[in-house]
Amino acid sequence: MDIEAINLLSYEDFVSTFGNVVERCPIITAAVWSKRPYPSVAALEAAINDFIEALPESGKEGILRCHPDLAGKDLQSGTLTPESREEQGQAGLDRMDASEVSRMTRLNSEYKERFGFPFVVCARMNNKTTIVEQLRDRLRNTHAQERARAIEEVKKICHLRLRGLVLSNQKNKL
Amino acid sequence: MDIEAINLLSYEDFVSTFGNVVERCPIITAAVWSKRPYPSVAALEAAINDFIEALPESGKEGILRCHPDLAGKDLQSGTLTPESREEQGQAGLDRMDASEVSRMTRLNSEYKERFGFPFVVCARMNNKTTIVEQLRDRLRNTHAQERARAIEEVKKICHLRLRGLVLSNQKNKL
Repeated sequence: MDIEAINLLSYEDFVSTFGNVVERCPIITAAVWSKRPYPSVAALEAAINDFIEALPESGKEGILRCHPDLAGKDLQSGTLTPESREEQGQAGLDRMDASEVSRMTRLNSEYKERFGFPFVVCARMNNKTTIVEQLRDRLRNTHAQERARAIEEVKKICHLRLRGLVLSNQKNKL
Repeated sequence: MDIEAINLLSYEDFVSTFGNVVERCPIITAAVWSKRPYPSVAALEAAINDFIEALPESGKEGILRCHPDLAGKDLQSGTLTPESREEQGQAGLDRMDASEVSRMTRLNSEYKERFGFPFVVCARMNNKTTIVEQLRDRLRNTHAQERARAIEEVKKICHLRLRGLVLSNQKNKL
């Protein structure tokens, strides 16, 4: 799907295709439809990032709170979004032994207790070892530092999801 | 559930209880958790409304685009959120004959073509006759008038969903 085809989508098709590039926040995709046409996919991605950056700090925390825990109860119970399931799977989070799961659960709890939102990291750019290392490192950040850091991860996830959807829709000629 | 109990909820329980007071926009509920404690349920509702009002116009349109059509394909196919299903049912939209469904579909299409978002109305304060009347009336608004009008309906829906959840969780002692 090239940018000309994307620009021609109805808001319904646009949201149904790209609505989860930011996890469980279809409002963001639905909002940037207002600003089409876009000269490129990169410009569409920039509009999403601009929308996120213009939100108040509570809104950025709202985005983070729409994310599931890594290797958490949604992974165990099969209630992850398809995108998250694939990403957590690629990082090996669905193939951890009991002690690894228990360590991750403990670190996730500590993180949520400290910051009031879940640990968000671009799983596709990581594996279970580097994820645990980052969780430990980022627990040392201040609240404001960590909110900004986590939003950068949201943008990386969005970048890969958006590129993936554009490519797969090209392949399928949708 | 009184406001003291609401203020004590983790963000996860807060979002899982109140995440759909604005249709398919859990980010809004998740954002206002940052500003707890609230002195009253009315203050919580005001924080939601303030968050909505502070969004850029594209963000308000984004909220509207997360709403289903009234008596549309999500009602027919059973893919409405539970809240929308109940509301559309109460307004009698699930008991329309073929000619009523066809008229509603035509008016919805005309509205979406004109404004670029779906017709949103507080179904619980209406019935299928007044909904069709309002659809016809509001088609005459300018784009900016209608966006503001539709956001007022989002707030009415939010008000009733929030009050309903607070009351039902009181009854169930959750």
